Amino acid sequence: MSIARNIKLYKLQNYTFASKAPQYEKDSSVNNRLVRLKDEYAQYGMRRNIEACFLVHEHGHPHVLLLQLGSFNKLPGGELHPGEGEIEGCKRILTECLSPDNGVDAIEWEVADILSNWYRPNFEITRYPYCPAHITKPKEHTIVMMIQLPEFGTFAVPKNYKLVAAPLFELYESSTTYGYTIASLPLVLSRFTFVPV
Amino acid sequence: MSIARNIKLYKLQNYTFASKAPQYEKDSSVNNRLVRLKDEYAQYGMRRNIEACFLVHEHGHPHVLLLQLGSFNKLPGGELHPGEGEIEGCKRILTECLSPDNGVDAIEWEVADILSNWYRPNFEITRYPYCPAHITKPKEHTIVMMIQLPEFGTFAVPKNYKLVAAPLFELYESSTTYGYTIASLPLVLSRFTFVPV
Ligand SMILES: [Zn+2]
Ligand SMILES: [Zn+2]
Ligand SMILES: [Zn+2]
Ligand SMILES: [Zn+2]
Repeated sequence: MSIARNIKLYKLQNYTFASKAPQYEKDSSVNNRLVRLKDEYAQYGMRRNIEACFLVHEHGHPHVLLLQLGSFNKLPGGELHPGEGEIEGCKRILTECLSPDNGVDAIEWEVADILSNWYRPNFEITRYPYCPAHITKPKEHTIVMMIQLPEFGTFAVPKNYKLVAAPLFELYESSTTYGYTIASLPLVLSRFTFVPV
Repeated sequence: MSIARNIKLYKLQNYTFASKAPQYEKDSSVNNRLVRLKDEYAQYGMRRNIEACFLVHEHGHPHVLLLQLGSFNKLPGGELHPGEGEIEGCKRILTECLSPDNGVDAIEWEVADILSNWYRPNFEITRYPYCPAHITKPKEHTIVMMIQLPEFGTFAVPKNYKLVAAPLFELYESSTTYGYTIASLPLVLSRFTFVPV
């Protein structure tokens, strides 16, 4: 008896990569980000973010799709609206971020599972993969969602970004380059059995 | 809509900690371990191991139970027999390792999920949370299983070990002290929502 969980991976070449209008960060610096977080916390309470992990394969090896802006890499994602559901919000954010504006050949975002949860206990840079002891009101909560891609589809990438495919070995133990969340992906993905199709 | 997965945690004080005869490692050194792995690989093929993660809470904070031998910490676990199923083998190993010999108040080991998979590509110390590219015959595969504990029960700890409860913040980013697998637990556990009872 086995409890392995299979995830189908399709070839990177199965997908079409188009481009669309550039999308800019809401905050022009880390400091501005923390100031806006504090302002909005006073108004709406804890901020909730979604980040999304897409996997493809290249000659059988799993690769994660990352948005690259210069030397900075991030997972596709964004902020949930106050009161918005996690799954509905995840689909809305990914459509805004990566679907063609005209909807042609757009990918249906299928949320397969939660990969990790990250908490920002204070209006500071550090976040943790658990809510630290005695923090009853974290300031920000980020859910990393695993997306099961369909066999084919089109990604429309904002012109100021590149969408790149990084193999797991490049991300493992890479927090100084990629940050803690992306560097943790090989670990949080290790429970799955990947089936390259 | 939310896809959070809840895991019930009971108080450390709910469990009784008894002791039983000491249990010794099969290998007296890391080098002997690799030699035996090589010998057995020639005979039986890839070795399969189980390691188990038990969670309890102390005043609401999740803690992981670790077996401590001097300054060395490990997860309860062991080697599957050739052909043995993962879940059946996990239960057999945990019973040998931690159940009272007379079976009184023994815990029923309920395997809740896979937390991570680790591969040893060569007869060497390093293992990875993925099977490295172009390794078609890993030498060892270890599955880290999450165990859902019942509300009460008795752990019988081999006399040469201590069973200690470590909070998540102590394990996070601690690979130099605890090794990669234990240090990864806060990350691979972060997808769950813990419900202290
Ligand atoms: Zn290759
Ligand atoms: Zn590649
Ligand atoms: Zn406390
Ligand atoms: Zn404690």
